[in-house]
Amino acid sequence: MSYTDLNPDTRTLLGPGPTTAHPRILRAMATPLLGYLDPQFLVILDEVQELLRLVFQTTNELTLAVSGTGSAGMEASLCNFIESGDHVIVGVNGFFGSRIAEIASRYGADVTTLEKPWGEVFEIEELESALQARPAKILALVHAETSTGALQPMDGVGELARRHGALLLLDTVTSLSGVPVEIDAWGIDIAYSASQKCLSCPPGLAPITVSERARAVMKDRKTKVANWYLDLSLLEQYWGENRQYHHTASMSLIYALREGLRMVQEESLDTRHARHLTNAKLLWEGLKDLDFELHVPLAHRLPMLTTPRLYAGLDDAAVRTNLLNNYNIEIAGGFGALAGQIWRIGLMGFSSRRENVTLLLAALRENIT
Amino acid sequence: MSYTDLNPDTRTLLGPGPTTAHPRILRAMATPLLGYLDPQFLVILDEVQELLRLVFQTTNELTLAVSGTGSAGMEASLCNFIESGDHVIVGVNGFFGSRIAEIASRYGADVTTLEKPWGEVFEIEELESALQARPAKILALVHAETSTGALQPMDGVGELARRHGALLLLDTVTSLSGVPVEIDAWGIDIAYSASQKCLSCPPGLAPITVSERARAVMKDRKTKVANWYLDLSLLEQYWGENRQYHHTASMSLIYALREGLRMVQEESLDTRHARHLTNAKLLWEGLKDLDFELHVPLAHRLPMLTTPRLYAGLDDAAVRTNLLNNYNIEIAGGFGALAGQIWRIGLMGFSSRRENVTLLLAALRENIT
Repeated sequence: MSYTDLNPDTRTLLGPGPTTAHPRILRAMATPLLGYLDPQFLVILDEVQELLRLVFQTTNELTLAVSGTGSAGMEASLCNFIESGDHVIVGVNGFFGSRIAEIASRYGADVTTLEKPWGEVFEIEELESALQARPAKILALVHAETSTGALQPMDGVGELARRHGALLLLDTVTSLSGVPVEIDAWGIDIAYSASQKCLSCPPGLAPITVSERARAVMKDRKTKVANWYLDLSLLEQYWGENRQYHHTASMSLIYALREGLRMVQEESLDTRHARHLTNAKLLWEGLKDLDFELHVPLAHRLPMLTTPRLYAGLDDAAVRTNLLNNYNIEIAGGFGALAGQIWRIGLMGFSSRRENVTLLLAALRENIT
Repeated sequence: MSYTDLNPDTRTLLGPGPTTAHPRILRAMATPLLGYLDPQFLVILDEVQELLRLVFQTTNELTLAVSGTGSAGMEASLCNFIESGDHVIVGVNGFFGSRIAEIASRYGADVTTLEKPWGEVFEIEELESALQARPAKILALVHAETSTGALQPMDGVGELARRHGALLLLDTVTSLSGVPVEIDAWGIDIAYSASQKCLSCPPGLAPITVSERARAVMKDRKTKVANWYLDLSLLEQYWGENRQYHHTASMSLIYALREGLRMVQEESLDTRHARHLTNAKLLWEGLKDLDFELHVPLAHRLPMLTTPRLYAGLDDAAVRTNLLNNYNIEIAGGFGALAGQIWRIGLMGFSSRRENVTLLLAALRENIT
């Protein structure tokens, strides 16, 4: 068997992630490797931590990137804090809420799920009722549900969780750097994200940040974390001053993340959020002109992931296949409760550009009239 | 705070990993991303599986790359097969044996460790006595101990494990493609490796292969794996025909792995093994000329990781710092039981080149006379 040179088509990635990586980030990936204890690499790790704190808007000391994808970040955010029998409340209004519940239960949590139709969000009163009905160690919510396109409002949720003695865990996989994510101001105790969404890096790293309150809970565990690779008490020994070997960090992914974070800093968070919204509005208008309804009401619609409803007569698979094969554009279908009902169009990070909106709308026009 | 362009010094990496990545592999990393369900990416995944089977010398269907470093591969090789109370025998003759025991115990295994001084290997009679004393579900060994430089002989071990009804688990992190690793011929049931050793890719992926016998054990579990991210029964749904989403694979790392594996195929395993040995012999001779004794006897010495013993009067830290700062050469010190007693010099994959041996020996000569 022989294998050709690697030469895939150049796609415009407008799905739920990965997004198109900026050329600067791809170039960073080609930087020669350093050893994991090389003084030059340790400086880079420090810089990545500083930049992550900036992007998460936090002063949390325990802020680092887990060597795995966003799902590993999710698992790290659960397994380090849950001990067998702990009560965890999870808001489930999409696929990733279900995943949180599934992973929490694998670590022995007693999970209460709050269920809502896919595309809706939780009112603070609903969260309060749940916490009043039964106190929980953790209240877990998904900020930007990539399976539905809905943005969970966070006003007052941090205060609520504190009042009821619960740690507040937030999935910011798709939201980070695309909409405001203010870990400290909002009182988030545990948050994780992923490199390949609005940060426009390749997949493989999961930024995570942990408040001092949550860190104390971690330190007070009675049992070891049933997951060695994602044990934050070990990981912080490497990212912190001890520099104690845990596993060999992926220099290439760290290089890429540093470059992606640096680009966020250069653009500024505010400008970046505004760009995501501006391009999203162009997309929304264009989709309405093409007779699409949007699944999520404006009040809690994500700017970085739009979910038009498919109308009768539209051939979901054929249109998406045409977009991919004839235009090199990737958009995604719905799945789970929304399979066959929506598309998922991502305008995240470097993919959130006016030319991408114009191209996609024009290509759609050529294929659905 | 502002951050400079990424521009680390170009190192010659002669430590225990990562190794210097070949320019072809770095170029592959800069390839634009594809979606994780893009038909072109799925072809690449299939190719990576085929090439992994070639390098592992196996026909195991369940052969894939876990989205984490070698340590994640280790954890995946344990957590999928262990249920609470299972007896696991671990050969501990170095750091990575201890790590296997630690991780196994986190998943509730009843662990028996066979202890040997760091640098020695296990005789088959010792393994047999342990299995006779108490049957085990898993017998776990480290093929190439990166903390000591010793190569565990595998003659007859597969047959022994089968006779006693144990699954045979082998850590091939440092050995794969540097010395023969014959999964099927040796009767290995579970093996894992890492991308950044003799495959000379960046860290971040852990190849793993599982025999049908071990796969049946996995399928017969009574409890869910307590680790969702590394659950092979879910991972094989994505790598197999279903293509069911689990997590977003890291395209960039998969590109790099494909290129690294393709280079192994082009060179051929036999030639690659011979190259590692030839360059190792040059290094061993040169080190002897410099009055070093080698910690591991020739009979079970690794060709890709040499561990000279430090002699009295040699300033370990000063020499290594000079090598790094004045020659851009990274070698590593000993740790654990061998801290301060040895160096660890890696000649792995693309780092195993005659010019690297010549350079290192000449640089040492300039610094230890």
